[in-house]
Amino acid sequence: MELPENIQETIQRAITEDVGSGDVTADLINNNRQSKARVICRENAILSGKAWFNAVFHQIDRHIKIKWNFEDSDFISANSTLCTLSGNSRSLLSGERVALNFLQTLSATATQTKQYVDCIAGHHAVILDTRKTLPNLRLAQKYAVTCGGGVNHRNALYDMILIKENHIIAVGSITEAIKQARLLHPTLKVEVETENLKEFYEASQANADIIMLDNFSLEDMQIAVAKNKGKSIKLEASGGVDLSTVKAIAATGVDYISVGEITKNIKAIDLSMRFKEIPSKH
Amino acid sequence: MELPENIQETIQRAITEDVGSGDVTADLINNNRQSKARVICRENAILSGKAWFNAVFHQIDRHIKIKWNFEDSDFISANSTLCTLSGNSRSLLSGERVALNFLQTLSATATQTKQYVDCIAGHHAVILDTRKTLPNLRLAQKYAVTCGGGVNHRNALYDMILIKENHIIAVGSITEAIKQARLLHPTLKVEVETENLKEFYEASQANADIIMLDNFSLEDMQIAVAKNKGKSIKLEASGGVDLSTVKAIAATGVDYISVGEITKNIKAIDLSMRFKEIPSKH
Amino acid sequence: MELPENIQETIQRAITEDVGSGDVTADLINNNRQSKARVICRENAILSGKAWFNAVFHQIDRHIKIKWNFEDSDFISANSTLCTLSGNSRSLLSGERVALNFLQTLSATATQTKQYVDCIAGHHAVILDTRKTLPNLRLAQKYAVTCGGGVNHRNALYDMILIKENHIIAVGSITEAIKQARLLHPTLKVEVETENLKEFYEASQANADIIMLDNFSLEDMQIAVAKNKGKSIKLEASGGVDLSTVKAIAATGVDYISVGEITKNIKAIDLSMRFKEIPSKH
Amino acid sequence: MELPENIQETIQRAITEDVGSGDVTADLINNNRQSKARVICRENAILSGKAWFNAVFHQIDRHIKIKWNFEDSDFISANSTLCTLSGNSRSLLSGERVALNFLQTLSATATQTKQYVDCIAGHHAVILDTRKTLPNLRLAQKYAVTCGGGVNHRNALYDMILIKENHIIAVGSITEAIKQARLLHPTLKVEVETENLKEFYEASQANADIIMLDNFSLEDMQIAVAKNKGKSIKLEASGGVDLSTVKAIAATGVDYISVGEITKNIKAIDLSMRFKEIPSKH
Amino acid sequence: MELPENIQETIQRAITEDVGSGDVTADLINNNRQSKARVICRENAILSGKAWFNAVFHQIDRHIKIKWNFEDSDFISANSTLCTLSGNSRSLLSGERVALNFLQTLSATATQTKQYVDCIAGHHAVILDTRKTLPNLRLAQKYAVTCGGGVNHRNALYDMILIKENHIIAVGSITEAIKQARLLHPTLKVEVETENLKEFYEASQANADIIMLDNFSLEDMQIAVAKNKGKSIKLEASGGVDLSTVKAIAATGVDYISVGEITKNIKAIDLSMRFKEIPSKH
Amino acid sequence: MELPENIQETIQRAITEDVGSGDVTADLINNNRQSKARVICRENAILSGKAWFNAVFHQIDRHIKIKWNFEDSDFISANSTLCTLSGNSRSLLSGERVALNFLQTLSATATQTKQYVDCIAGHHAVILDTRKTLPNLRLAQKYAVTCGGGVNHRNALYDMILIKENHIIAVGSITEAIKQARLLHPTLKVEVETENLKEFYEASQANADIIMLDNFSLEDMQIAVAKNKGKSIKLEASGGVDLSTVKAIAATGVDYISVGEITKNIKAIDLSMRFKEIPSKH
Repeated sequence: MELPENIQETIQRAITEDVGSGDVTADLINNNRQSKARVICRENAILSGKAWFNAVFHQIDRHIKIKWNFEDSDFISANSTLCTLSGNSRSLLSGERVALNFLQTLSATATQTKQYVDCIAGHHAVILDTRKTLPNLRLAQKYAVTCGGGVNHRNALYDMILIKENHIIAVGSITEAIKQARLLHPTLKVEVETENLKEFYEASQANADIIMLDNFSLEDMQIAVAKNKGKSIKLEASGGVDLSTVKAIAATGVDYISVGEITKNIKAIDLSMRFKEIPSKH
Repeated sequence: MELPENIQETIQRAITEDVGSGDVTADLINNNRQSKARVICRENAILSGKAWFNAVFHQIDRHIKIKWNFEDSDFISANSTLCTLSGNSRSLLSGERVALNFLQTLSATATQTKQYVDCIAGHHAVILDTRKTLPNLRLAQKYAVTCGGGVNHRNALYDMILIKENHIIAVGSITEAIKQARLLHPTLKVEVETENLKEFYEASQANADIIMLDNFSLEDMQIAVAKNKGKSIKLEASGGVDLSTVKAIAATGVDYISVGEITKNIKAIDLSMRFKEIPSKH
Repeated sequence: MELPENIQETIQRAITEDVGSGDVTADLINNNRQSKARVICRENAILSGKAWFNAVFHQIDRHIKIKWNFEDSDFISANSTLCTLSGNSRSLLSGERVALNFLQTLSATATQTKQYVDCIAGHHAVILDTRKTLPNLRLAQKYAVTCGGGVNHRNALYDMILIKENHIIAVGSITEAIKQARLLHPTLKVEVETENLKEFYEASQANADIIMLDNFSLEDMQIAVAKNKGKSIKLEASGGVDLSTVKAIAATGVDYISVGEITKNIKAIDLSMRFKEIPSKH
Repeated sequence: MELPENIQETIQRAITEDVGSGDVTADLINNNRQSKARVICRENAILSGKAWFNAVFHQIDRHIKIKWNFEDSDFISANSTLCTLSGNSRSLLSGERVALNFLQTLSATATQTKQYVDCIAGHHAVILDTRKTLPNLRLAQKYAVTCGGGVNHRNALYDMILIKENHIIAVGSITEAIKQARLLHPTLKVEVETENLKEFYEASQANADIIMLDNFSLEDMQIAVAKNKGKSIKLEASGGVDLSTVKAIAATGVDYISVGEITKNIKAIDLSMRFKEIPSKH
Repeated sequence: MELPENIQETIQRAITEDVGSGDVTADLINNNRQSKARVICRENAILSGKAWFNAVFHQIDRHIKIKWNFEDSDFISANSTLCTLSGNSRSLLSGERVALNFLQTLSATATQTKQYVDCIAGHHAVILDTRKTLPNLRLAQKYAVTCGGGVNHRNALYDMILIKENHIIAVGSITEAIKQARLLHPTLKVEVETENLKEFYEASQANADIIMLDNFSLEDMQIAVAKNKGKSIKLEASGGVDLSTVKAIAATGVDYISVGEITKNIKAIDLSMRFKEIPSKH
Repeated sequence: MELPENIQETIQRAITEDVGSGDVTADLINNNRQSKARVICRENAILSGKAWFNAVFHQIDRHIKIKWNFEDSDFISANSTLCTLSGNSRSLLSGERVALNFLQTLSATATQTKQYVDCIAGHHAVILDTRKTLPNLRLAQKYAVTCGGGVNHRNALYDMILIKENHIIAVGSITEAIKQARLLHPTLKVEVETENLKEFYEASQANADIIMLDNFSLEDMQIAVAKNKGKSIKLEASGGVDLSTVKAIAATGVDYISVGEITKNIKAIDLSMRFKEIPSKH
């Protein structure tokens, strides 16, 4: 699990969004006042997003101290204290909402991913994410997926070739599309989306690196898996995947199961930050 | 419903996130090829986000034509065609995912807001949003809330004073906090979060503009509403609001009900984009 | 008095503006040379802008030491030494002009504000600023106004509603404009600009938060104040305010007097920076 | 008079500063409403800043039409109509203040410059500006100086060598400083600041391109001018220049007179924008 | 050959670098003057960089007209006219150097690539580029390589796994490194750098997608090619490749030959721009 | 030799270009692993670019330690160790290529400049650079030129006036062009490009600061030098300068010889970075 490069920049924009020209309520508080606070997680969850949370407070005030009791990817049971913070009271109050917004969103992604991963425990398949993400949080959510035990599919349009129905129509055939892809981008993997067994056979013949089985019946998936035995081609199930169907899909023997829901749907984890004043020294 | 100023900038970052150094699969397609496409909404929803959707395609290729059948705020019944697009095939394919990610997320926010708004129809109260938003999508989601019939609370920390428990402890009392707020920022409204009727009375005496009744019982809310009769102070219910409780809260006669869920939880609206080739002219 | 968020960014642009590709004269000086310097204020003034001055030197060279003898808001008598600096000679010379440009401009704003504030001492009214500011120095000047004892009106178009003549014409009436403003932005204060007592009465009836009395005669102001007695509406005098008229205006009993001159006119405070070489150690 | 390169960028920041997340008052007005407006100049002035004014409205709404009756550098007599605007009412209202802030500040600089230029009419000398400018408006003000008939000194630290007292101390002597400057930057002009005739002679001997006579008496200036006769060295008077002294300084025969006041002091020109509704077509 | 996304941004920085606060020589020319100009190529070359050249002039002045006689990738014989330009004289002069700097650098890359490609004509191998590029011109040079008939290796560190000696030491073995790479990034291709046949066998066994034969003798390359027959693994020759050795390397039957020289060494193509005045109309 | 202001910004863009969303190969290595490395220079060279090399590693990981054995401008004999690095293994690997790309490019510029400088040793003339530079590396290359003993001509279009053939045609004559240049920009030096002795005489008469002798024969250069004796005008030879002609040009007695080749042609210095693992402590 590698943290993305753009955390500081993402946080800078989020602080600008929320604090803008200044926190007008924090003005009420004496600038020397110190506080302690703790973040409590109100429900069972998988933790994700410590680096974003830390970055918020450290950009606002680099003297804020944060002590964590857990690591990203840890299972958190309801009502645990995730971390304690101490430092300038204004800074803690100004950063609270932005920091929690990241933590509740990324932990939601990790937690939901973990449910899928747990469902298919014991099977060969792994859970992949998709490009169906919250705008401008792509890399952060991909990180959260790995915290939940999922594996990252391509980041974006630039790092892998994924030939879909419309590309195939435009080029003429699956075989021709794969051939051209190899020629233009010899260092990139080539995946082909197939809608039925006939297309699957063609993609297999043309030696794609990964074949997506889009909305295949369980029976057709099993046939594809059987035909693929001994080959280095990977098979990815896609379409109609939810918590009620994922286990049966894994049982067919596919290598990957891609799930849009883990990144496009969010049920924010319920977090709260409790303050305690630090008596001033004189 | 006013569109925020930052749409073009938000979209520019989202395209960079998804397209980066280039769409390596679009390379397969002849650069002169033209396509048509239509976006279908697979479930009942409230539409929100046309301006973001349009901006994606127009930044990628200003010659793309988009014809919409609906306006933001419209109710969409399942399987309706939202819009049709035509233009360069590569451009349509490169923009598809980013454009849909915005539309599915913002329509989700609008749709969920509408459920709350419908629940309290006939009552005096309005549904307010909160600062519990998806990071870096604050203004976009606030716009989506208005599409669903909600009303915007403060944008951020800069445009209103909201005195919470910790500010009160730091300053000494509710009365003192309001007094200082008036002095420092005479042009901003002052809201106070109260936890019980005693605090409510003090805030009322000190003439806050808005008093938040945080986690009040229905009975205490009714008492607060009764005591407030004839005053220009507005009352905002907050905490423990969900679709099962919102109607009873509205019935107490409060002015505002703020709901974090409408912006922090997302169930992406199910959209898909279908392509049709345009036969080339020679 | 809260410092704005954008100081570092403002200073970065100002350094780029003045230093650009490099200070070609500083090249003449040995890079190891150390100097001391002090900034002298040549006339009576109210100090404002220490944070901007410090930021200039710390962005150019974080090893520069600055020791201040005064705080922002302090009265400075002519020929006082404001601060002493020590460090690399080149860095001190390269930062001198930019740092002084900020200090002389912001102290000018604070000093001029103080003249108005002193004029109305003993009266209930406070001096407000306006949006008539030097382009791209809005927040810095608003801070300087508070150093001079003034109070900030709205920052900008985003944080308060101020209905002017033309908005009223467009909507139909003052009453209708206030009603719509309340509906669209319940968390923002609503001010109405009125040109005569008739408009004042309508705005008062419609319960604006603040009523601007624009170019009212002293007699009409007194009538408006009398009519407003016992109400929570605030009255703001505006138009034709200068040092010769401000005291009489305050005597009418208005709550606020807004003065464009304190931010749009500048008589830069006369500052100079004197250098002293530090003998090198060997 | 060449417009600087950074106008669009300067305006973008100024709009962000004033409009931010949106003009909440403009929301009251129907989005289809059209208006006309005209800008009136309430006092005698030299016009400067049309390009900045235009850029404000065109960035907000490229359909706004602006018709000017004058050019930059023109003398404007009090109560003239500078220009008329027409277009969307919201756009006109949202841009009004930012556009006027630029025009009143830059015209102030041009007008004040013109007073100095007129004072020395008939003399050989020209009025130069300095680096004592409003932060982040350097190039805009330098343009305004040329509108008032002044001439630009160096832009900033990067485009000319100006050896001051402290550089001389650091290097050892005027002669040595000039020698090193020629060596390091053969393509840049070298100016030396001198405090008395002895330093002037040394700088003259060392063949500076320009010699600044800083706070010289009129008599010493005349001596310097006489000694300089027949040489290609230019002489610049500096220090203690105001409207009461500038003519006598010009009479000494110096080539340049540099005046900090024209850019660091501002008495904003009094402008106002008057609206007229356009009756809608149906 | 796909143009990179960042052309406009790259050009904007290059113009700022060269024009900065303004072209002080262009000021001499009347602002209404029109000119024609043509760009002549003084030596045989492969053309590359039209889009960058066009972007320079269109950012400076969108009314400049450019008519090209050739396409990127075309062979240009010495003294051909590449294109003709017409428009405002100042704009043409201000953009000339920046536009030529791009064209001479990118055409140099394409021309040098073409020499390698021609050397191995008739062989199966293709010429690949590397990450040894001019800083901040990576994507532009990769485009130029394709104009010369080369093929792009990975763009950067983000889009492919290339396991080098030091990665292998850190992980323990080639086999283990490939295994972990597959696990962490299933959608990315995995290349391994090998120094000798023993390492080659291990990488082959572990089923890398591409094996780099780094500084192999021609004999060892032939052995590797023979052993690889029938496998889908691609072989890349690297190290010690120049115009005198490339043909023999291609003859061994490897798939790819990567050449650092084509992007890190530049012999700028000799271009010049000739002006012709357009007589003004009155 | 002054380092340019934009190093950190240049490096930030170069890292984004090469690392983007993350170094996917570095993921294989344990995040706690430490390494040592050294950079070896494989050929004789003049060193240039330490600050850029350091900035790459310090932006990626500020704990990386770098110990240099040489200074910029030093002569390096083949196979010397330039520096040793120690710190986190991933950080060292991720920064290697970007850091070397800067060092090999800038040292190439310095090395080539030194060859010209050595050729004219003993003569009065100095080697100047031109604006024919690698796009977006102008200031870095100008610094490298000074490392090789060259001297910088103007940075860009903003800091000096250089009147070329086309400017002269547009204005009417050399005399008129110089006169206008003096008027518009009194603080900038004026150079004129001349094509023959007749133009040289006119430029000399009009008292240009520098006269460029463009493509003059050696004989005409000598005549120009003789005619210029005793004047403060500088003469610059330009056009057709290479290592075989530069000495004879210097012998004519010109002051400057400008050489495009030193910045537009690059033969990257051959550098390599060798790693050594640091045994972990437990």
